Amino acid sequence: MAKIADKYFKVNPWKIIEEGFDKEHNQAAESIFSLGNEYMGVRGYFEEGYSGKGLTGSYFNGIYAGAKLGEDGYKGVVNETEFMVNAVNWLSTRITIDSENLDLYVSSIEDYKRVLDMQNGLLTRSFVWTTKSGKKTKAVFERFLSMNQVHIGVQRIRLTPLNYSGNIEIKMEADFGILHQMHKKNYWKVLHKNAEPDFFEIAAETVGTHKYLYSGSRIWCDGSYTVSDQEEEKKIGKQLIIAAKEKEAVSVIRITWNDEKKDAEGNRKHIENAEYEELLNETADWWKNVWEHSDIVIDGDDENQQGIRFCIFQMMQTYHGANPGNNIGAKGLTGEAYNGNAFWDTETYCLPFFVFNNLEAARNLLMFRYRTLEEAKKRAADLDCRGAFYPIATISGKECCNLWQHASLQLQASTAVAYGIWFYEKMSNDKAFLKEYGAEMLVEISRMLATRGDWSADGKYYGYYCVMGPDEFQMMVNHNCYTNFMGKFTMKYTIDTLEELCKEDAQAYKELVNKLSIDESEIADWHTKAEHMLIPRDDEHKLYEQHDGFFKLPHVDVDKIPVEEFPLYHHWSYDRIYRNDMIKQPDVLMFMLMFNHMFSEEELKVNYEYYEPRCIHESSLSPSVHSILASQLKKKEEAYSFFRFATRMDLDNYNRNGDEGLHTTSIAAAWMNIIYGFGGMRSDGDILELSPTIPQGWKGYQFRITCRNCVLKVQVEKDCVKAGLLEGSRLELKIYGKDYALTQQTETIEIPKEWK
Amino acid sequence: MAKIADKYFKVNPWKIIEEGFDKEHNQAAESIFSLGNEYMGVRGYFEEGYSGKGLTGSYFNGIYAGAKLGEDGYKGVVNETEFMVNAVNWLSTRITIDSENLDLYVSSIEDYKRVLDMQNGLLTRSFVWTTKSGKKTKAVFERFLSMNQVHIGVQRIRLTPLNYSGNIEIKMEADFGILHQMHKKNYWKVLHKNAEPDFFEIAAETVGTHKYLYSGSRIWCDGSYTVSDQEEEKKIGKQLIIAAKEKEAVSVIRITWNDEKKDAEGNRKHIENAEYEELLNETADWWKNVWEHSDIVIDGDDENQQGIRFCIFQMMQTYHGANPGNNIGAKGLTGEAYNGNAFWDTETYCLPFFVFNNLEAARNLLMFRYRTLEEAKKRAADLDCRGAFYPIATISGKECCNLWQHASLQLQASTAVAYGIWFYEKMSNDKAFLKEYGAEMLVEISRMLATRGDWSADGKYYGYYCVMGPDEFQMMVNHNCYTNFMGKFTMKYTIDTLEELCKEDAQAYKELVNKLSIDESEIADWHTKAEHMLIPRDDEHKLYEQHDGFFKLPHVDVDKIPVEEFPLYHHWSYDRIYRNDMIKQPDVLMFMLMFNHMFSEEELKVNYEYYEPRCIHESSLSPSVHSILASQLKKKEEAYSFFRFATRMDLDNYNRNGDEGLHTTSIAAAWMNIIYGFGGMRSDGDILELSPTIPQGWKGYQFRITCRNCVLKVQVEKDCVKAGLLEGSRLELKIYGKDYALTQQTETIEIPKEWK
Repeated sequence: MAKIADKYFKVNPWKIIEEGFDKEHNQAAESIFSLGNEYMGVRGYFEEGYSGKGLTGSYFNGIYAGAKLGEDGYKGVVNETEFMVNAVNWLSTRITIDSENLDLYVSSIEDYKRVLDMQNGLLTRSFVWTTKSGKKTKAVFERFLSMNQVHIGVQRIRLTPLNYSGNIEIKMEADFGILHQMHKKNYWKVLHKNAEPDFFEIAAETVGTHKYLYSGSRIWCDGSYTVSDQEEEKKIGKQLIIAAKEKEAVSVIRITWNDEKKDAEGNRKHIENAEYEELLNETADWWKNVWEHSDIVIDGDDENQQGIRFCIFQMMQTYHGANPGNNIGAKGLTGEAYNGNAFWDTETYCLPFFVFNNLEAARNLLMFRYRTLEEAKKRAADLDCRGAFYPIATISGKECCNLWQHASLQLQASTAVAYGIWFYEKMSNDKAFLKEYGAEMLVEISRMLATRGDWSADGKYYGYYCVMGPDEFQMMVNHNCYTNFMGKFTMKYTIDTLEELCKEDAQAYKELVNKLSIDESEIADWHTKAEHMLIPRDDEHKLYEQHDGFFKLPHVDVDKIPVEEFPLYHHWSYDRIYRNDMIKQPDVLMFMLMFNHMFSEEELKVNYEYYEPRCIHESSLSPSVHSILASQLKKKEEAYSFFRFATRMDLDNYNRNGDEGLHTTSIAAAWMNIIYGFGGMRSDGDILELSPTIPQGWKGYQFRITCRNCVLKVQVEKDCVKAGLLEGSRLELKIYGKDYALTQQTETIEIPKEWK
Repeated sequence: MAKIADKYFKVNPWKIIEEGFDKEHNQAAESIFSLGNEYMGVRGYFEEGYSGKGLTGSYFNGIYAGAKLGEDGYKGVVNETEFMVNAVNWLSTRITIDSENLDLYVSSIEDYKRVLDMQNGLLTRSFVWTTKSGKKTKAVFERFLSMNQVHIGVQRIRLTPLNYSGNIEIKMEADFGILHQMHKKNYWKVLHKNAEPDFFEIAAETVGTHKYLYSGSRIWCDGSYTVSDQEEEKKIGKQLIIAAKEKEAVSVIRITWNDEKKDAEGNRKHIENAEYEELLNETADWWKNVWEHSDIVIDGDDENQQGIRFCIFQMMQTYHGANPGNNIGAKGLTGEAYNGNAFWDTETYCLPFFVFNNLEAARNLLMFRYRTLEEAKKRAADLDCRGAFYPIATISGKECCNLWQHASLQLQASTAVAYGIWFYEKMSNDKAFLKEYGAEMLVEISRMLATRGDWSADGKYYGYYCVMGPDEFQMMVNHNCYTNFMGKFTMKYTIDTLEELCKEDAQAYKELVNKLSIDESEIADWHTKAEHMLIPRDDEHKLYEQHDGFFKLPHVDVDKIPVEEFPLYHHWSYDRIYRNDMIKQPDVLMFMLMFNHMFSEEELKVNYEYYEPRCIHESSLSPSVHSILASQLKKKEEAYSFFRFATRMDLDNYNRNGDEGLHTTSIAAAWMNIIYGFGGMRSDGDILELSPTIPQGWKGYQFRITCRNCVLKVQVEKDCVKAGLLEGSRLELKIYGKDYALTQQTETIEIPKEWK
């Protein structure tokens, strides 16, 4: 893994700082300075316009368009897709002095600085601009999204003439004329425009999908100015001509309400009496609460300190459970790549973060799957299966992946939903969720699993033929170990869930059985298939075989592949990637992490040492899995080496594609890397466990998680672990294998020798 | 295989007869009445225009256009294609009486009859047309393509007023305004138009590919008429107003020269003195010669008699070696389906027909592969291989298949070229071809085979990973038995060829080695890989395994699949097709037929009985392979049952897609079915062999083939076989395992009991 950092931002524990503007970094920096509040996201583009390379991206969760791809073809092969569309640019601004537009691509500026403050969510940018006519103006741009009123976005521009008095023109608009950059197309039809004194509004809907979006903005200026209306086909706004005075700052504030509700009257009212400072303070309080409950502090490693806080900040910006109809796109709300589609990453990587930081958000992520169950059932029917087949990539619940080899062969989105339900239930004990929603999803997924699989020729084994596991470098294989393992787990968990429901709530069980027409023979069938599921394994060496025949595949020494051949998808013939024992991410190690307790350390070691050298980590989720397991195997240096770029993947643009947006779901893996890796947390057993270790170069670190209504703070020092509750009265857990019942009194536990 | 005949044409040993016109059958009948002479092909459309469903198709070998399919994607995945375009309608005619156009979709006609005479290649259509004004006209349309002057097409229309004297208007044009039906697009740009008395010409080129085509026509009329020029954007022609007399036939003849040469002057001259009867007689002589050398006579089965002659007729129409740059499209020159692309069928199914009927044509088919060697080398490079990777589907030599799972995983087009060279050399002893062209192709194919394959993990076996064999129902497998077998054959044959060349012509060997930079170590590498090639086989049962792991696949009882689920590609989820032990066509049986001598009858029986019940014959080439091997295994009824629709696949429209064109390459399989099946011919050993059997219902049959400059006639009766030479002096061969040296004296051999 030859990944090299592109160091650009200043290191600071709470802030992301850009000092001096570099055009080459502009589009990637836009991604880093993205703001989001789950409802909407806005890239850190320069709202005053920028004629260089950039992506003026403004996105809304659940606002998407569709496209048909090619002719109708084979059954089950998707030829329609859905993608998040670039929506209203509600920050659009133009600033003109002496007929010269401010444009950082060409304007003369100095003292440039941009700061994202993760303590309050405020993005600030300041510089001094000198016009060709010699006028110097200090400009300060601020923006933030309200975290508690998610429809609100706020902008403030402060301008100070440094060496003159005179007119400054500021145009502020709401612009639906924005292009989807990849498709080079505008997807909006404007339905309504209206301007009033100090206020303008515009509403539009997406072509084809008819997603409605309203944007209303109120404008305040503390200077002396004249104002006029501005209107174009897909834009509306105001032009202010401000009579600015030398050395006197003048501010313009815009507070915007964006909403998918068709209620202009109501929408308008929300911001009538809005006030900048009040909104910022509320949002700062919201963040304060986040950090109190979820902060990770690293002593002695400023880069990772900044990195992990950036990860937590972005996770919370992207999703915090505001809406049970939302999911998490692979790039969050920070770019067009991956079309805003959500993948299995949600349940596998993001869910643990939310389970231990925001249980309601975790529940709402699962509710997305319940709300889209009907689509998953249609997809199963398309694939000649019963039950529900969850999409590999989706916005609305429909399968959006038009590569049949992924969409039809990958079962892990479906089994990840089952895993998510199991994990959430285990940590929350939310039996009501299970009864009302979870059990139904489990039944439909098990139905798919019982019809998608087959019996081997000799009738001895059940399993899945022609599948692709999470490791997408083994395309069309039989008995993928992960797929079979998860299939077995899902059917067994479904049976257990139904049995428990039958015992605990006979009436609810009866209703479910009637609703879903389950009979005993079907449950018996799941039982038989789960019992006979083939989990390929070399018993003598305790080595799982990633799929039937994997051990016989030609060997490739991945360390000998020249660095310029990466990413392989671009440099190797497509089919060549699949013809050897190289893996993109680990399938066997993955389930050994997810169900860690089922495997002995010896078994883990054998499998880790076999698969690790075969993995090229072309999935950004892969290194953290290896780091966590390396920690468990007390391979401390290896653990740290795999962790190396987890927290700063985006800040240091390791994958060189930061311009496309953030690796939002990888960010979740970075969190897991610390908590499950160095913290040694295990949550798959009967009780929460911790076995913290400390990386060589760190003086100490602490983390906070919420579990069973308690906020647990764990502080790891060189020789000891201090653990106690910040909220709640009692939490039972194991530390280094020993039972503790923690209270608000801090326990100090010496780190055992073997963990040092 | 639930295939049901759609009986429409009258049975006749030498003619295809349509009596009475049925609109429902029109487009399929157009395919049946297609004429071709390798250079050009013209469907049996009504030249006077037809407002019902039909395909006015006029095609030229090697005239094609290209299209881009989708964005640039993965390396080696094809996103451009080429397809045969519908070209000039040089037969275009309009006939008008009393302002009423003749149009068989709406006109009142009686006594309709259409006849294709396979003895002279003449297509005749006659009927009586009654206009709304009550005028009755007998119309006779004739057309044929000259077989010895392949640029010439001939049309004659004879009209006899039965109950009136008066004007008949006939418009004759050359029309480049024709649409490609599937793409709904015209691909022609007209460059030149010119009209002279009784003559008109037009030239155009294809958009993008710049393929030039000239069409010049001379017109004769034996009645009294006036003439005027006709011209539209992409058309030119003449209108004749004929003063016809009651009961007096008047004829209009058009003789057309079509040519890709840019030499209007020269082109024009070719037809200046052309004469209808002379051209027809020459063509009839050409066909007479064909039948004298290649006829198959069946006594006691009129349907198969007609069927097999239709097959031979179409094969010879499609290809007879006129041009070494041509190949044979899957539909010949009879329709747009399969884009006019040629597949591995050429070497595997068509080559035997030509080797035994027209050796020069066989050689020219292989020359197509030599001429396209550079493209195959580019393709290999795209696929990260050395050497040459021949395309699965092609017109110009470029890969035209944009389904990567076929284009990148199927190696059989490449190994089929090697097989074709081997087979041609064996039967022709044409060492010059081998030296000048064959050896170079073999070297480049072996280079590909030595780089596309891999060694198994334990280093013991070489073979091909992630391939699809000819059986396209097992998509992405390792060690496909056919692929490995053919890979081994190809590398060994290449080594043998080089060794022999070195021995026989040291200078030529040296030149080749220099030209291709071959060194000893490379040859040694092929040797090692061929020796270690894994041919999966259950040695205990002598059963070959179609690929590594095939025996473990879930079993599907193909007889239990409901008939309405066929074709499976339309009714099953795409991925579901690949998840079991069902096969589309036989891979193991295929190489057991191609290299029949390498396998004992016991071995053949075991493999036949294992694979036959697993095969659904979704390839139209599959039944003949089964029939031939069933004959060898003395399963006479089974052999006849698989033969049942081989000769009449198109005549009886078994696949219900006759409207798209003929199954030209299946037609070749029908010929093989009789010669290799019932005739029991084997050509893969050191000497030609025959072991004829006779189907139950046949009184007798005879066939003629050309071999080593001798024309062999074999007559099979109920009890005996009579064999002798029609041309040539001596031919050594085996009959029922016994050696014979045949002369022009007929030998009579009793059929041994076990073959009865």
